[in-house]
Amino acid sequence: MHDKPLLMQLIEAFQCLPGVGKKSAQRMAYHLLNANRQNALKLADLLERSMQSIQHCQQCRDYTEQTLCALCRNERRDQSVLCIVETPADIVAIEATGTYAGRYFVLMGHLSPLDGIGPEEIGLNDLRELVVNNQCREVIIATSATIEGETTSHFIVSMLQQIPDLTIKISRLAQGVPVGGELEYLDSSTLALSLANRQNIN
Amino acid sequence: MHDKPLLMQLIEAFQCLPGVGKKSAQRMAYHLLNANRQNALKLADLLERSMQSIQHCQQCRDYTEQTLCALCRNERRDQSVLCIVETPADIVAIEATGTYAGRYFVLMGHLSPLDGIGPEEIGLNDLRELVVNNQCREVIIATSATIEGETTSHFIVSMLQQIPDLTIKISRLAQGVPVGGELEYLDSSTLALSLANRQNIN
Ligand SMILES: [Zn+2]
Ligand SMILES: [Zn+2]
Repeated sequence: MHDKPLLMQLIEAFQCLPGVGKKSAQRMAYHLLNANRQNALKLADLLERSMQSIQHCQQCRDYTEQTLCALCRNERRDQSVLCIVETPADIVAIEATGTYAGRYFVLMGHLSPLDGIGPEEIGLNDLRELVVNNQCREVIIATSATIEGETTSHFIVSMLQQIPDLTIKISRLAQGVPVGGELEYLDSSTLALSLANRQNIN
Repeated sequence: MHDKPLLMQLIEAFQCLPGVGKKSAQRMAYHLLNANRQNALKLADLLERSMQSIQHCQQCRDYTEQTLCALCRNERRDQSVLCIVETPADIVAIEATGTYAGRYFVLMGHLSPLDGIGPEEIGLNDLRELVVNNQCREVIIATSATIEGETTSHFIVSMLQQIPDLTIKISRLAQGVPVGGELEYLDSSTLALSLANRQNIN
């Protein structure tokens, strides 16, 4: 009887979500209690089932509740082209472009020796094996354009280049002025890079 | 096997929360899967228990999983003073001021005849009974400063004034310039009201 009221506990629990402070948590709780109890119960059920059964795809390390994710099971995806990303959200972003038909490999992070995250932790042994087994002809490295992303990218390139008897095309996402970006507001390192990598148009 | 992946279902389910679009829903799902599965399971459990057992307090209509809410069970709160609010969130806001020691009554909305919300739906019979039973000496009407809030307030005032043999002080939250508000940016109806309700200081 003297426990903290359930509603307060619920409002606190909502604050484990990213970007949700006390105020939004309160709004969420009231919103669901007011008129969305069925949706809330559905969310509760999906949360429970997801946390219990979603693991990593045994091939690409993306999240899935099956052994292989839908993308790895899709025969129409070209398995000789592999795009390496840091997070599952990056796959969603690339898929949204509708211009990529190959497969993926998710590092689930990037190299960060100080935090104890080495090649093993980001699955580079599995990656190497996948590249060899699938006889990949192209690897696209799509890690972030951050220092950590670049370091990880360099590490992967040397690892792949050390695989004997493998002819493979390795590329990196192009960097430069974003579409719609105004030069005036662009940081100078991006601008310098765009200038250095300028492309002929005639 | 051909169901929509669990993760996609979870991302959709998150979008039943107010202010949560596809992008935030995705971020929430990944955040919980990455490193917060215990928190997520706790949230799922609290959601389920809350939706199943939180109902309205039989006295003030605020949310509670018990017959009477913590506030109505608190003997130190003066039951002869009653503050009438539209939503449970309004109680939280007033409690946060730390300056009110009476009880509350929650309308859970306001009069809205076109939507079929009449006096019965906002609990005015219960309110009338409560005022009489508790021998209230003061009622503070804290409905919103909107047209609907004002209409509801007027309706409540006439209802209370029709109770025979009841001497009761009825007040309404003061309206005017917000603390820190600059006149330059204040809407003219608030400014006109502040002027009309000007208070003597000497
Ligand atoms: Zn996969
Ligand atoms: Zn109550």
